[in-house]
Amino acid sequence: MTTSTALLFADLTGVAVFAASGASAAVAKRLDLFGVVFVGVVAALGGGIFRDLVIDEVPPLAFADWRYAAAAAVTAAAVFRLHPQLARLRTTVLVLDAAGLGLFTVTGTLKALDAHVPAVGACLIGMITAIGGGLGRDLLTGEIPVVLRREIYAVAALAGSIVVALLSTYGLARAAPLTAAATFVFLLRLISLRRRWSAPVATLRPPRTGTRGPQG
Amino acid sequence: MTTSTALLFADLTGVAVFAASGASAAVAKRLDLFGVVFVGVVAALGGGIFRDLVIDEVPPLAFADWRYAAAAAVTAAAVFRLHPQLARLRTTVLVLDAAGLGLFTVTGTLKALDAHVPAVGACLIGMITAIGGGLGRDLLTGEIPVVLRREIYAVAALAGSIVVALLSTYGLARAAPLTAAATFVFLLRLISLRRRWSAPVATLRPPRTGTRGPQG
Amino acid sequence: MTTSTALLFADLTGVAVFAASGASAAVAKRLDLFGVVFVGVVAALGGGIFRDLVIDEVPPLAFADWRYAAAAAVTAAAVFRLHPQLARLRTTVLVLDAAGLGLFTVTGTLKALDAHVPAVGACLIGMITAIGGGLGRDLLTGEIPVVLRREIYAVAALAGSIVVALLSTYGLARAAPLTAAATFVFLLRLISLRRRWSAPVATLRPPRTGTRGPQG
Repeated sequence: MTTSTALLFADLTGVAVFAASGASAAVAKRLDLFGVVFVGVVAALGGGIFRDLVIDEVPPLAFADWRYAAAAAVTAAAVFRLHPQLARLRTTVLVLDAAGLGLFTVTGTLKALDAHVPAVGACLIGMITAIGGGLGRDLLTGEIPVVLRREIYAVAALAGSIVVALLSTYGLARAAPLTAAATFVFLLRLISLRRRWSAPVATLRPPRTGTRGPQG
Repeated sequence: MTTSTALLFADLTGVAVFAASGASAAVAKRLDLFGVVFVGVVAALGGGIFRDLVIDEVPPLAFADWRYAAAAAVTAAAVFRLHPQLARLRTTVLVLDAAGLGLFTVTGTLKALDAHVPAVGACLIGMITAIGGGLGRDLLTGEIPVVLRREIYAVAALAGSIVVALLSTYGLARAAPLTAAATFVFLLRLISLRRRWSAPVATLRPPRTGTRGPQG
Repeated sequence: MTTSTALLFADLTGVAVFAASGASAAVAKRLDLFGVVFVGVVAALGGGIFRDLVIDEVPPLAFADWRYAAAAAVTAAAVFRLHPQLARLRTTVLVLDAAGLGLFTVTGTLKALDAHVPAVGACLIGMITAIGGGLGRDLLTGEIPVVLRREIYAVAALAGSIVVALLSTYGLARAAPLTAAATFVFLLRLISLRRRWSAPVATLRPPRTGTRGPQG
């Protein structure tokens, strides 16, 4: 398997995984088949479309290569059919989502570096590629965006993209180290979910008296 | 009337129609004149701006040709003035919206094909051009996006864009067949609204006992 | 200080100011440190990324120049630390936000004109550059977008961008007149906030009887 085949395979796996996460969220919102497929496709392709726009690869791969849209739509439709089984496998979905985060972080950062974006910008683009689909999914379904929840999500992607940029700087952007970087993001996300790691929250002053309601 | 004049006319008609739909939604939300014009302009130009970005026609037509912004703003302001009469003509607005969906599907798909986007991608771009404005309108006004409601909307656009791609493949992308394609989308949307056609919804298991409330 | 240094300084000041406004909104929503920085960065860089995409300056400056992301992230993190003091300085935040609106209106319109966008389109792009960050901030935090509230906001930016386009047409796009244009937007926004200026709202028919509540 050549490098570019490996990258394509990683990218399409990420697409399928995010399509499944988007479709699951849409089924939970009682959307119909078309709505489920639509949210799945947005979650799967949204981050990559943004990435390709900012690195001037137009038309974006999601439109230039039919396999992207096909992988997203077929996966989302399959989730629509199979959702009762998937519901029992909630943990599996979280695991797959973390895998997608790792895959897209690596492919997004690499593509930005290949397009001669400076390192800091490439890390940002890699992170946005990885988190963009989930953001679109949550905005469409009216949920609090996962990147804003008190979890390690965007930060796992950003940490992974920094690793990729460092590997690239030292000429180590080869299969094994990149796979390790994707695995690092994957494990960081999973362990933080498991251990409920989170960042600090700003302390607001308590109200002076105890008479205020919960919205006070 | 030449082909390009016809396309411009079709495009500007779509702009005006979507501006009217956005402005009506904004009036219903009690926004002020500026808010109404803003939502109208987003609904009218949003889909086309996305289309032009992904086919690398920059600056997008909405910024390159002042008639687009003018048509959107003037129509939205007119709706602000005339809304009590329009409210009575709710059916008319739905009909015009369906007409806009048909027009933008055809012009969006054609432009993507002209920019050498492969057929599957061009169909997606045509669909997004047609539904993008309504999506922006609904996100801004806090409504459930129309594409996610249990109605035939995005699918009508997608079906129309496939027709346009087939016509183009067989060298039939001429005025009469394209007008027929736009009319097809228009009628498909209207008939499905009338007959309340919709796609299936995933069946969730009923709760074991009858004691849960409607949110159970 | 050369013109381009002055423009960079104006741009980075706008970035910091909008990062502070986004971070403050996120602290108020009880987001954690990462969420606060994320919303701050979106508010600071969102408008400029859109601007650069539509004028085909890719990669957008927010990714090409690390100082943009750094200014946004550092400011947002500082607000997270300092927010109790800032809360008392609510007026200061509004003043800084108005200053950012003026700065981004001028730099956005100028960049679009430099990219040979026609005047009407350049004014729209300048306005969107100025209001885009606040729009992203409000969509992420679930607030009614500031551009849709009954306040002079987008219109102040649009008025300023028209002034910049006129100055440019007459060869007067030099430091002093441009500073005056930014100041004009700044003051227009502040005075309208102070005097509660707003645009008219469409009159809806009152209900026939007086029994309906305020939401009737």
